[in-house]
Amino acid sequence: MQTNYQQQTLGILGGGQLGRMLIQAGINYNLDIHILDPDANAPCKHLCNRFVQGALKDYQTVYDFGKDCDIISIEIEHVNTEALYQLEKEGKKVFPQPQVLEMIQDKRKQKQFYLDNGIPTAPFLLTENREEVRQHAAFLPAVHKLGKEGYDGRGVQLIREKADLDKAFDAPGLLEKFVDFDKELAVIVARNEQGKVKTFPSVECAFHPVHNLVEFLFSPASVAPETDRKAQALALEVIEKLDMVGLLAVEMFVSKEGEILVNEIAPRPHNSGHHTIEANFTSQFEQHLRAVMGMPLGNTEIRSAAAMVNLLGEDGFTGDALVEGLDEAAKEKGVYLHLYGKKLTKPFRKMGHVTVLEDDMQLLREKAQRLKNLIKIKA
Amino acid sequence: MQTNYQQQTLGILGGGQLGRMLIQAGINYNLDIHILDPDANAPCKHLCNRFVQGALKDYQTVYDFGKDCDIISIEIEHVNTEALYQLEKEGKKVFPQPQVLEMIQDKRKQKQFYLDNGIPTAPFLLTENREEVRQHAAFLPAVHKLGKEGYDGRGVQLIREKADLDKAFDAPGLLEKFVDFDKELAVIVARNEQGKVKTFPSVECAFHPVHNLVEFLFSPASVAPETDRKAQALALEVIEKLDMVGLLAVEMFVSKEGEILVNEIAPRPHNSGHHTIEANFTSQFEQHLRAVMGMPLGNTEIRSAAAMVNLLGEDGFTGDALVEGLDEAAKEKGVYLHLYGKKLTKPFRKMGHVTVLEDDMQLLREKAQRLKNLIKIKA
Repeated sequence: MQTNYQQQTLGILGGGQLGRMLIQAGINYNLDIHILDPDANAPCKHLCNRFVQGALKDYQTVYDFGKDCDIISIEIEHVNTEALYQLEKEGKKVFPQPQVLEMIQDKRKQKQFYLDNGIPTAPFLLTENREEVRQHAAFLPAVHKLGKEGYDGRGVQLIREKADLDKAFDAPGLLEKFVDFDKELAVIVARNEQGKVKTFPSVECAFHPVHNLVEFLFSPASVAPETDRKAQALALEVIEKLDMVGLLAVEMFVSKEGEILVNEIAPRPHNSGHHTIEANFTSQFEQHLRAVMGMPLGNTEIRSAAAMVNLLGEDGFTGDALVEGLDEAAKEKGVYLHLYGKKLTKPFRKMGHVTVLEDDMQLLREKAQRLKNLIKIKA
Repeated sequence: MQTNYQQQTLGILGGGQLGRMLIQAGINYNLDIHILDPDANAPCKHLCNRFVQGALKDYQTVYDFGKDCDIISIEIEHVNTEALYQLEKEGKKVFPQPQVLEMIQDKRKQKQFYLDNGIPTAPFLLTENREEVRQHAAFLPAVHKLGKEGYDGRGVQLIREKADLDKAFDAPGLLEKFVDFDKELAVIVARNEQGKVKTFPSVECAFHPVHNLVEFLFSPASVAPETDRKAQALALEVIEKLDMVGLLAVEMFVSKEGEILVNEIAPRPHNSGHHTIEANFTSQFEQHLRAVMGMPLGNTEIRSAAAMVNLLGEDGFTGDALVEGLDEAAKEKGVYLHLYGKKLTKPFRKMGHVTVLEDDMQLLREKAQRLKNLIKIKA
């Protein structure tokens, strides 16, 4: 068979770091990639065949952008789905499909989907406003999540006890039983138009012992092979029940009893898969492209154990970004810096990440901690 | 130390596949890369911060392009060096330096350099025209090389015996004793402004048993550790005697007696280093950027044994390129396709390459051969 994937234009909604890493992978296949992003200085600006500045939530903007493409995909799920439905109706390939995006945009619908499909997830209640949340003191400890617009940890509030109830959002949301989990895992799974599926091995999110924030990601996860197998099977089940084409990141809790619960899903490349660029035979970015372009999916095996550290803007610094410790880090074997091309740093902005390769898991943990201490994004 | 390599503009003369792979590596460091190339549809066209269409041999074009950059480098050595001397005089960093480029542009000067510096190389005679070559029948078998403008095998003519003398070039050149070599090796070495140096392990060019053309590249070379050590030491010696900053590919012959002779050098990323993208801890492209930007050099160790196959346009096909066998190849573990973004194929045009990872050298050879048979660039 003769193929020329360049003959099909791939439009991506969103031109941030995920789009940027998709482009980096797409270069090897000569893909003709077009980008839509509201920011005139988006990280993808100078790296695509066509860059359009425009709002991702605006019907006309998304429709106009998409009608010049053959295949439309996303790097952020908060986009106008009405335009995508229309483009799909006009014969465009839209992957992930608009109905999947619509469901995932609303965490209430997402939870209902798990329930309807027998996918294990933490118990929850739907709430319309803060007043309603207050009536569920008996359900605590719990997490209150905004139905829409949550992103990167925004729109999520831990409500341990009655005194915290004032922190609940005064908008439609869901109150989810707090899971006192043993580990948090993530599995990335891909599915192409032909229905072929492939999972990446489970990775583990390591939390800061005091601040309770994800600090590191480790691949592979330090879990029993049976747990990894179950986690991968669960991710497969989710993407198949969604009947989705593209890449899906499935975040899961492993409870202290060993039960695996789906936490959230993201229908695109995900922070928990950045290490695959160097650490697996195929990267999540290439896999996303393969899935949406209709190519065979790539081998997902691990080439090396790895850790990933997000490089967030240091607290207290706003302005033109400077990387502290870059040269020292660059001297180390198996250390890969990825800067996202954002000129301005601000506190906790995702400015880049660093991947660390090291097969000895103990040394890997030490090396990851050392690199995290070394590299700082200041201004 | 705080660093922001993006604050320095890197101008690259040439926007072909080597520039394209430099950009792919530079994305991770947010490098601000500008490209000059005569072709309006050069492979780098849509991937750089600024693209200038213009002649690489024209003084004014190169000067005007360079004066808006802080650091100027190349991906092809056939550029106007007078402009580079002027830019250097005006305080720009030009790596590799103009005098290195000027010497390498002329194979006669290159050979003289080896001789002057005690670098082992095949015996040679300088010739001014075809008539002069004819007078050296006693020197045969030999290879006649054009002094200037040779590239990718052009400007090289094997003269086995008297009857072949008519094939000699009627222009200034050099007649080099034919080396009946056992192996052809290449070593890539980098040197930064601080004088730090680092070599990649030796790789081996495998020739077609009948057509006497380089068919495959294998890493590591199947040679004794002592031969690899000597080859790396020789590459180091060459870059240090050149006092060069940047990346240098050193092609060598290993004679049947085990003697290592320098064949040719290229002061830039080279075909013999393409496998390093997936197979070594640092790629040759990243190493070139590190060297010219003044960063610490990266670790060059092998992560996996690898083979590289050039994807040349099939004989008999000219037109819009189509890749035959892409999907079948993409299914395989450890197979990496790199297409160079050239719309038009023509016979023997370098359209891409494929890297194959496999630690068992016998399986590696078989897999490389299989992939070579599978992927064809047609129209």
